[in-house]
Amino acid sequence: MSITVDHPIEVPPGLRNVVVTETELGDVRGNEGFYHYRQYSAVELARSKTVEDVWFLLFEGRLPSDEERAAFIAELAPLRVLPPEVREILPAVAAAGPSFNPLAGLRTALSMLTAARALPPLWDADLARRKADAMLVCAVTPTILAALHRLREGEEPLEPRADLDAAANWLYLVTGHEPEAAQARAIEHYLIATIDHGFNASTFTARVIASTGADVVSAVAGAIGAFSGPLHGGAPDRALASLDEIGTPDRIEGWVRQKVSDGDRIMGFGHAVYRTEDPRSVMLREIAVGLGGELVDFATTVERRIVEILAELKPGRHLYANVEFYAGVVMELCGLPRSMFTPTFAASRIIGWTANILEQATDGKLIRPAARYVGPTVLR
Amino acid sequence: MSITVDHPIEVPPGLRNVVVTETELGDVRGNEGFYHYRQYSAVELARSKTVEDVWFLLFEGRLPSDEERAAFIAELAPLRVLPPEVREILPAVAAAGPSFNPLAGLRTALSMLTAARALPPLWDADLARRKADAMLVCAVTPTILAALHRLREGEEPLEPRADLDAAANWLYLVTGHEPEAAQARAIEHYLIATIDHGFNASTFTARVIASTGADVVSAVAGAIGAFSGPLHGGAPDRALASLDEIGTPDRIEGWVRQKVSDGDRIMGFGHAVYRTEDPRSVMLREIAVGLGGELVDFATTVERRIVEILAELKPGRHLYANVEFYAGVVMELCGLPRSMFTPTFAASRIIGWTANILEQATDGKLIRPAARYVGPTVLR
Repeated sequence: MSITVDHPIEVPPGLRNVVVTETELGDVRGNEGFYHYRQYSAVELARSKTVEDVWFLLFEGRLPSDEERAAFIAELAPLRVLPPEVREILPAVAAAGPSFNPLAGLRTALSMLTAARALPPLWDADLARRKADAMLVCAVTPTILAALHRLREGEEPLEPRADLDAAANWLYLVTGHEPEAAQARAIEHYLIATIDHGFNASTFTARVIASTGADVVSAVAGAIGAFSGPLHGGAPDRALASLDEIGTPDRIEGWVRQKVSDGDRIMGFGHAVYRTEDPRSVMLREIAVGLGGELVDFATTVERRIVEILAELKPGRHLYANVEFYAGVVMELCGLPRSMFTPTFAASRIIGWTANILEQATDGKLIRPAARYVGPTVLR
Repeated sequence: MSITVDHPIEVPPGLRNVVVTETELGDVRGNEGFYHYRQYSAVELARSKTVEDVWFLLFEGRLPSDEERAAFIAELAPLRVLPPEVREILPAVAAAGPSFNPLAGLRTALSMLTAARALPPLWDADLARRKADAMLVCAVTPTILAALHRLREGEEPLEPRADLDAAANWLYLVTGHEPEAAQARAIEHYLIATIDHGFNASTFTARVIASTGADVVSAVAGAIGAFSGPLHGGAPDRALASLDEIGTPDRIEGWVRQKVSDGDRIMGFGHAVYRTEDPRSVMLREIAVGLGGELVDFATTVERRIVEILAELKPGRHLYANVEFYAGVVMELCGLPRSMFTPTFAASRIIGWTANILEQATDGKLIRPAARYVGPTVLR
């Protein structure tokens, strides 16, 4: 990337395929149905590692040794605890009406951290300070999301437990009881598999803001906003709502054909990058089948029929179940309420965002494209 | 913009000169020392119009008739009043320690608006609703910033006054007294001149988030973060701090030469786009000279000498005073405390951000570039 020109450069709409940065964090290979963190298959990491291992991998560039893992976990424990200035405003944030938006609640609470502590701009901070701020933001995010949920339910927020790892802690903080091992591992698969996923719109947003040299929370606050956009994707509750709507196996066919003829999107199917099955969906289906039960049987039946019918009605479109479809099933089986499905996604993706912010901060170059004026002739 | 390709496209670092969108909002002509809003010279608008006129121009695409202006002002008045859910958290936000960050405070308060009211995603809202949300955000932003300032000073926030226009209201809400006409007009010049300025990093951030279909506040929250970055620019208090540091005319020369030989940036001089005098600086110098006084005499002397010395030490670099230099002087003369200089900038720029968000929302295309993986060989 060493082209230097000084006139407008034409590219495809939406910057599609335009290479804006280099990254060592990972990539998505849409034609192969494969994605990776650093040099490792993300799905293999989800099958064999903990959230903390993968978090360390993204921040440090390598998997931790046993000692490094222990030190990392010890470092995390106090960072999970709500800082007093955040705790103080949570009741007011949670007191919002029925249209409460948990992602906006998270952003409000994290923004409060910068308002109160004035986290240093990335440009004024050394690497150790940047990492410390990123660690704090990632560690406290699940605690904030769970605390807002508990307050909404009229319950007191729970204290994070130092004896539980990230995945088990998440289930504990939200549900109020220690999860069974199978549930904790199931949600851990989901959390690891959704930490990062190529150069999606929220990750790009985080990097644009980081490129101005602003602080970690400023970049994360922008990413949360992009993540909340309908075009971003990532609402596992919508796919589960479809299962409810269908209700019984005999209604699948009619439901799908109606949706397609109405021109409605079928939530949980299709992906912007994958032309194969979504590897996250394949893994989460396995996890769901392992947990078992009626919902899983129904979901696998629905998936099979929807894929068949879509192949018939929209030939050549490669429409398969995406990460949302089985994510909702897995979260439901782990006892998470539906209002916490998208927050669960955010609780893992925050690690990917901050890893990207840390990488962008080492670049030091402002991301600043151009616009072309196409309005009325300028009067001079 | 109708190129369709499906392989990585190489562009200059930081997307420099890469055209990401078309706009009818305006442009900056760096070689001509000229910028415009819609088809009008921004400086001419600042000299002849009110903040409300230019706000209407950016939102509606034309200058208002007398009736339209009256209706617009009437619509604004109630929107300036703090909503109860925002008012409630302000004391906690303002209670932060000495390192309080007013922009993060603004973001926290605006984010609370979405958390509580669940502003609809741009994609789910019609044009009238989008505009209503944008109007609310722009109208309430100065009130929030001023209220946080008052609370920090141990004073009660003031109610916005329906009988004062945007510029006079701003000075009133911050200082607690109705400004003289000359001060109100001076600050109005500044506010109008800084509403928008081409495709800067915060504006781009706002448009990236808006392109996901997220709500107005989500896009604004990201823009505020980018705006706070040291590479973004826009900290008029730093230039004024330099005037203090220099102290007397006989010390100018030594101060500048020392700065340059230390490799330090001289705040308030040089611009990424202008190769001429910054037209905002030219106008604000005139305004400052009109207000008159010792500070202005000293500032004009300092400016002249710094430009001369920079021309000698850095030939061909076209280093002139930028918007920051006289902005600080004008704000000081209008009685604004230095901690409110950057918030004053934000109080006007919020109109430009939201105008860009409204325009982006009509496009409906996700802005999503690519990254290239350059890490270790992937293990499969």
